[in-house]
Amino acid sequence: MEQIKKRAKKAGFSPGSRLHVGEKNGGSSVDETKLAVFDYDGDNLSEHAPKTIEDYLSIEKQFSVRWLNVEGIHESVHNVKILEILGRHYGFHPLTLEDILNTNQRPKVEVFDNCVFIVLKMLSYDNDNGAKVRIEQVSLILGTDFVISFQEGTGGNVFDVITNRLRKGHEQLRKSGADFLIYSLMDSIVDNYFVILEMISDKIEELEEDITQNPSPGNLQALHALKRHMIFMQKSVWPLREVLSTLERNDCKYFQSTTKRYLQDIYDHTIQVIDVVEIFRDMLSGMLDVYLSSISNRMNAIMKVLTIVSTIFMPLTFIVGVYGMNFKNMPELQWEWGYVYSWSLMLTVVIVMVVFFKRKKWL
Amino acid sequence: MEQIKKRAKKAGFSPGSRLHVGEKNGGSSVDETKLAVFDYDGDNLSEHAPKTIEDYLSIEKQFSVRWLNVEGIHESVHNVKILEILGRHYGFHPLTLEDILNTNQRPKVEVFDNCVFIVLKMLSYDNDNGAKVRIEQVSLILGTDFVISFQEGTGGNVFDVITNRLRKGHEQLRKSGADFLIYSLMDSIVDNYFVILEMISDKIEELEEDITQNPSPGNLQALHALKRHMIFMQKSVWPLREVLSTLERNDCKYFQSTTKRYLQDIYDHTIQVIDVVEIFRDMLSGMLDVYLSSISNRMNAIMKVLTIVSTIFMPLTFIVGVYGMNFKNMPELQWEWGYVYSWSLMLTVVIVMVVFFKRKKWL
Amino acid sequence: MEQIKKRAKKAGFSPGSRLHVGEKNGGSSVDETKLAVFDYDGDNLSEHAPKTIEDYLSIEKQFSVRWLNVEGIHESVHNVKILEILGRHYGFHPLTLEDILNTNQRPKVEVFDNCVFIVLKMLSYDNDNGAKVRIEQVSLILGTDFVISFQEGTGGNVFDVITNRLRKGHEQLRKSGADFLIYSLMDSIVDNYFVILEMISDKIEELEEDITQNPSPGNLQALHALKRHMIFMQKSVWPLREVLSTLERNDCKYFQSTTKRYLQDIYDHTIQVIDVVEIFRDMLSGMLDVYLSSISNRMNAIMKVLTIVSTIFMPLTFIVGVYGMNFKNMPELQWEWGYVYSWSLMLTVVIVMVVFFKRKKWL
Amino acid sequence: MEQIKKRAKKAGFSPGSRLHVGEKNGGSSVDETKLAVFDYDGDNLSEHAPKTIEDYLSIEKQFSVRWLNVEGIHESVHNVKILEILGRHYGFHPLTLEDILNTNQRPKVEVFDNCVFIVLKMLSYDNDNGAKVRIEQVSLILGTDFVISFQEGTGGNVFDVITNRLRKGHEQLRKSGADFLIYSLMDSIVDNYFVILEMISDKIEELEEDITQNPSPGNLQALHALKRHMIFMQKSVWPLREVLSTLERNDCKYFQSTTKRYLQDIYDHTIQVIDVVEIFRDMLSGMLDVYLSSISNRMNAIMKVLTIVSTIFMPLTFIVGVYGMNFKNMPELQWEWGYVYSWSLMLTVVIVMVVFFKRKKWL
Amino acid sequence: MEQIKKRAKKAGFSPGSRLHVGEKNGGSSVDETKLAVFDYDGDNLSEHAPKTIEDYLSIEKQFSVRWLNVEGIHESVHNVKILEILGRHYGFHPLTLEDILNTNQRPKVEVFDNCVFIVLKMLSYDNDNGAKVRIEQVSLILGTDFVISFQEGTGGNVFDVITNRLRKGHEQLRKSGADFLIYSLMDSIVDNYFVILEMISDKIEELEEDITQNPSPGNLQALHALKRHMIFMQKSVWPLREVLSTLERNDCKYFQSTTKRYLQDIYDHTIQVIDVVEIFRDMLSGMLDVYLSSISNRMNAIMKVLTIVSTIFMPLTFIVGVYGMNFKNMPELQWEWGYVYSWSLMLTVVIVMVVFFKRKKWL
Repeated sequence: MEQIKKRAKKAGFSPGSRLHVGEKNGGSSVDETKLAVFDYDGDNLSEHAPKTIEDYLSIEKQFSVRWLNVEGIHESVHNVKILEILGRHYGFHPLTLEDILNTNQRPKVEVFDNCVFIVLKMLSYDNDNGAKVRIEQVSLILGTDFVISFQEGTGGNVFDVITNRLRKGHEQLRKSGADFLIYSLMDSIVDNYFVILEMISDKIEELEEDITQNPSPGNLQALHALKRHMIFMQKSVWPLREVLSTLERNDCKYFQSTTKRYLQDIYDHTIQVIDVVEIFRDMLSGMLDVYLSSISNRMNAIMKVLTIVSTIFMPLTFIVGVYGMNFKNMPELQWEWGYVYSWSLMLTVVIVMVVFFKRKKWL
Repeated sequence: MEQIKKRAKKAGFSPGSRLHVGEKNGGSSVDETKLAVFDYDGDNLSEHAPKTIEDYLSIEKQFSVRWLNVEGIHESVHNVKILEILGRHYGFHPLTLEDILNTNQRPKVEVFDNCVFIVLKMLSYDNDNGAKVRIEQVSLILGTDFVISFQEGTGGNVFDVITNRLRKGHEQLRKSGADFLIYSLMDSIVDNYFVILEMISDKIEELEEDITQNPSPGNLQALHALKRHMIFMQKSVWPLREVLSTLERNDCKYFQSTTKRYLQDIYDHTIQVIDVVEIFRDMLSGMLDVYLSSISNRMNAIMKVLTIVSTIFMPLTFIVGVYGMNFKNMPELQWEWGYVYSWSLMLTVVIVMVVFFKRKKWL
Repeated sequence: MEQIKKRAKKAGFSPGSRLHVGEKNGGSSVDETKLAVFDYDGDNLSEHAPKTIEDYLSIEKQFSVRWLNVEGIHESVHNVKILEILGRHYGFHPLTLEDILNTNQRPKVEVFDNCVFIVLKMLSYDNDNGAKVRIEQVSLILGTDFVISFQEGTGGNVFDVITNRLRKGHEQLRKSGADFLIYSLMDSIVDNYFVILEMISDKIEELEEDITQNPSPGNLQALHALKRHMIFMQKSVWPLREVLSTLERNDCKYFQSTTKRYLQDIYDHTIQVIDVVEIFRDMLSGMLDVYLSSISNRMNAIMKVLTIVSTIFMPLTFIVGVYGMNFKNMPELQWEWGYVYSWSLMLTVVIVMVVFFKRKKWL
Repeated sequence: MEQIKKRAKKAGFSPGSRLHVGEKNGGSSVDETKLAVFDYDGDNLSEHAPKTIEDYLSIEKQFSVRWLNVEGIHESVHNVKILEILGRHYGFHPLTLEDILNTNQRPKVEVFDNCVFIVLKMLSYDNDNGAKVRIEQVSLILGTDFVISFQEGTGGNVFDVITNRLRKGHEQLRKSGADFLIYSLMDSIVDNYFVILEMISDKIEELEEDITQNPSPGNLQALHALKRHMIFMQKSVWPLREVLSTLERNDCKYFQSTTKRYLQDIYDHTIQVIDVVEIFRDMLSGMLDVYLSSISNRMNAIMKVLTIVSTIFMPLTFIVGVYGMNFKNMPELQWEWGYVYSWSLMLTVVIVMVVFFKRKKWL
Repeated sequence: MEQIKKRAKKAGFSPGSRLHVGEKNGGSSVDETKLAVFDYDGDNLSEHAPKTIEDYLSIEKQFSVRWLNVEGIHESVHNVKILEILGRHYGFHPLTLEDILNTNQRPKVEVFDNCVFIVLKMLSYDNDNGAKVRIEQVSLILGTDFVISFQEGTGGNVFDVITNRLRKGHEQLRKSGADFLIYSLMDSIVDNYFVILEMISDKIEELEEDITQNPSPGNLQALHALKRHMIFMQKSVWPLREVLSTLERNDCKYFQSTTKRYLQDIYDHTIQVIDVVEIFRDMLSGMLDVYLSSISNRMNAIMKVLTIVSTIFMPLTFIVGVYGMNFKNMPELQWEWGYVYSWSLMLTVVIVMVVFFKRKKWL
């Protein structure tokens, strides 16, 4: 919901205007934009962490591939400036720069003459803020010999896997070109979806146990929160399928045919994620039925108690009422064993009732 | 609903007959048709507000692009005349003129030899009339060096953004051709959708709180009103996708390739709007479940009270009934502490019941 | 339902056999087949109403376009004969003749070498017969210079609009060819859908008010009747879309390119009708939820009354029971103000209960 | 369900193995396989009923078209042998022979070099066995000058129509080739669907009346049985659409272009059947809502009675309880008209209650 | 659910890393990987069971086709080694090896220059572990003259059918090439689906009987378990359709045209499986309605008992209360037959009530 509100802010600004309209990500916000540069080839690796964008431009590219990772793209004059400088340096389209700052993009790919621009969604599980799934945007730009990645927040450090692999000298990654790097980044993001799905799977199982054993209105809200999570996730993952099949099919010079085989692999994983999300949605719908029928069952249980109590005590109260009448001529009242007789009468009624309920399986 | 009724009026008129069949828009109706003319190029801008259509025709085009904005297209002989004169002057097809007056069109695009005709829906939030979303039609005609826009009402002044930009000399807008102007108009309309969605999002949140805390039949009606809003919005936005992809794909001479990149941007925004509308529909369906289960829960609560009261008082009433019997020979009645004994018996029953309910978690 | 039953009758007859299988339309049935002939060009118009088909054949075509309208196609030897004679005269395919008599066709178009055959559904609102929508079939045949139209009944006189236009000398209609006439007929049929939709819209609004204010089982049946109307309407209109896009796209010599622009107009209207029908179906589904929750609310109201009454009177009955006990030693019974004391005790209980219910917002 | 079980039997046999896996059709099972041969041209017709397949092969083809109809294809060594002999004689593919015996095929068409193989479903209404719809498979093979048809059972004698037409010398059928014969067979099968639909329509109407007037749990089961019928029917008819459009579009030498026009006719009928099946499914879903709300209404009625009885008698019981108290000092008890006074008090209470219920429209 | 959890484990490993991520299949786990080699042509067959992969490589291929079956692919260093050696020997792509170990693949086919790689799901019914359906992955690799199959577990010995056929010298299988072998393997897997469906069909019937006769909350859970089974099954079978149509359509040199006809046969079976799965899902949804309405009916029954008891005993209790009043002047109390009179009064009330209930059909 917050995303929609923030998006509305931008209405009225001229197209191509670079105002960050994504939600300023609470939990994982990076107050200062962090730059990290990796220059590498099969044999060498140099790492830099320039403080400013001007510093970055002064670092000359040493080896065959350069990766610039920008963390913390959020609404600030500072960020707009960084993007403008980078855009001018590399010759990006103004709308591309706008898309990077507008973190409500759907996953998409755009192929330009000088680069490929990819927008993805990175999911992370926010344990601090009431344990909800946070969706961050990651924008990737692939040139002939460089990759620039923009992260909204820290993204739960999903890219650490790649930086470690670079540092440890993972052969295939270091020896392949920029296209294999961008594939690796996308792969790490999609792989992370499975981690999120596992966490959600745990939550669903917990909730299911709760609902079958002790349904409460809170369960229903948890159920709908999970359902919304799945809707948002679906909206994040679904367009990714198109992105990947576009990249594969496209005769794009930036991807070598050997790398395309790897893109097919991510594509398969994406389909798996979509399948699981659909299964989860089906399961959550099923749990709603279980919840509603649990409530009905509980109502039935209450009604049974009421009916049993009423059905036993109403005849008894009637009997004692009868012998509370003040008729002059009531033979039973004069009997020696009248009182005992009345008790045995009432006991008989109770026994009959209990047998009746046993038969109806209410007891 | 009113739209359908008004539409029926026209049945029986010959095709191409120009009778305005849109709803005479209550809140924002413009009683007199207002014309506004903007002639501009990169350096110059002249603005006119001709009183009549004849006045307009006498204003000679001074600079490279002309924009004529007509506000207040509603059923009147006057409007039909304006359109006929404009149609003859620019050579528009009679059905195009009919489509402009029939404000129940679906968004669509039609490419002619001498112009491109686009129909869009402009949404505005009507705070005066019970806070509902109003849908107005905007028809846009793009020629080589002119744009004519027809608004049903004032459209919540969505175009003010563009007129301001023109006056302030926004570089890209002023230096580009008529195609960039028409893109800007469409962009301002689509951007405004996000404003509307934000307002609806607020309403949904309010309603959700209401439903979980204090469900009432009124909530259900509010829910269904919102659902209908979403249906109408979907019907307004969905065909826009086709319109934009037609414009992009078409080898239409009126759009330069640089502008097409911007159309892609509106297309992306339209998809975002559609996604949000779908999410809202899903959320509203979920809220219906919550509402229905709230009612069930309330029923359960009522039943519990009834059952507790009955289960406690029925045995008590039975006991006092027993000692109200008039048997000659009832030993308890003669006991010194009989009355106290009966009270302790009843107290025991109450305690047993309370323990029972505590166990069932009804208290 | 009747349609299905009548259709079954025909099973067993050889293909191409001409037995009218449509429902003999009760309210608007035309017992005798009526023929009407219009010969016209831009300047002239001659009208005939031949009694028999042989009479018709003897009338020589005078002007550029001939329109023969046949009203009242229903199961009779007479009709079969008329069709056979017409078929032989104009050279129609035997299956075309069968399709005209079988009034359960889906809307469709078939292009032959010598003519175009179009089947449409004409809707009319039957006020006499319990106010339901009646679906009649209209078959249209377009040759180079003639149009033949077959109506099941009188179709609520939808074609009167066209005959009036012909008589009044509507310029475009009189000067254009047979293709424009057939377009006008189709346009009048589709325009009439909006009239029907308006009537249904009124019914839906009435029903909605009824359901929210005073739900009764009768409402539910009215709701389902309306739902079925919408289903039947959808089935009648949906295939029309295909028909029109086939006509437009086809390189059919019978339609001039200027007329095709007008077909696009009907196509747009058809889509509008489909949209409205879908909106109505959504609204009716929503009203079912409202109805069901109204019933639940009513149950809740009943339960509340029961619970309030029980909760107030059970303790009171208990108290009076206590002082109806016959223990020898009950001090209260001997008090001077005992009776008054018991009443004040009971009043206190009532007040406590009322406060309790006020808090629960049950009163 | 039985179909699935029988199908499982075959798992484990080698592909192309000819074991009949269809359900041995109870009611209409033909214990012995019956062969019927029709040789005909425009002028002549000879009929044979060979006892064995060897007999059949010895009958020389006399006239232009031969039709062999095999009734009673069920699991027996005998049938396998018949098929093997026929297959060798005419050169059919082993999988075709397997498909004929496996009567759980979906409708399909396969075009070979020497023949066209079509699988259809024939529906018949089984009045003896609890009035359910029985689905039988019919396999048709079309060669240049012969047609072979295989029926699972007798199929409710659907083909009698065709044999009668042949005997009576129906001109078009007798003069056209084998392709028109196979069309006629398919047409008789599809026409029979309408008969089945009419019977189902009757059942739906009956059920509807039952549900609105006197809902019982048995209705629900009848409803679901009908729903399943519709599902099975949909599965039988839906693929037929593809079969027919394949036959029409295909440049298959076995169908003359004049016959293709007739195939289009069956195609239209198939679409009509599908439409009706969908309408029935929608209606059955609607009836479920009616049933469920009927149950709710009944519960409401019960609750009303309970509430009315309780609300009237609880205050009365309280009042008589008051005057059953034993306080020494109770003035009313001593009044001359005390008893009458108590009755008038109680009458007042009853009147107040009745007025209250009248207002609530519960009485 | 377990599948998703296991999949998450792999996130963080480099692409193409071979770690088995499938669930270690409990019931049917094969602790040691088992290899089985079949070399055969029309006349000869030699069988080997090499202990290690090195042993396997040393066995020279003797006859025209070789089939290597590897059972028990689960997470172990051992398996990774086997795959690496096989991969190097036959020249498989590293991602293919990864896909074999990752047993959460969707069914898919990939055509390489030197082989065709197919992933399928084998279903087996696990009677030991609470009778649930187990899904195992089978990977098949087809080269010009060899087939390698990898099974996760033993797959309920589905392949035994094929090995037996090989040993018994099934003519078609032994004389055809590797493509016919791979077809036979796929056919045995798909045929086995019908066995599973039959078992599920039994379970559904059992459950249905249970629900209509004696609904309990446990039924609902069984229902949802079955629904999930169907979802998982659908996800396993649905993509198989694509796999098979890809194989058929593809101009793949590995499949001879004669074999393609057989692939069409499996395709048809797959569609049948999908149809049955859809029918089952529809049936299970219908059973949910039956279950929910059973609960409602039960509630109705309880309410009826309560209402009957209350409606009979409340008036009786009121009457006995009346004659328990202590008014000085109550004529009835003094009557000789007052007591009898009161009993007849009460009997009358009971009879009236019973008649009332009989009319309402509550008794």
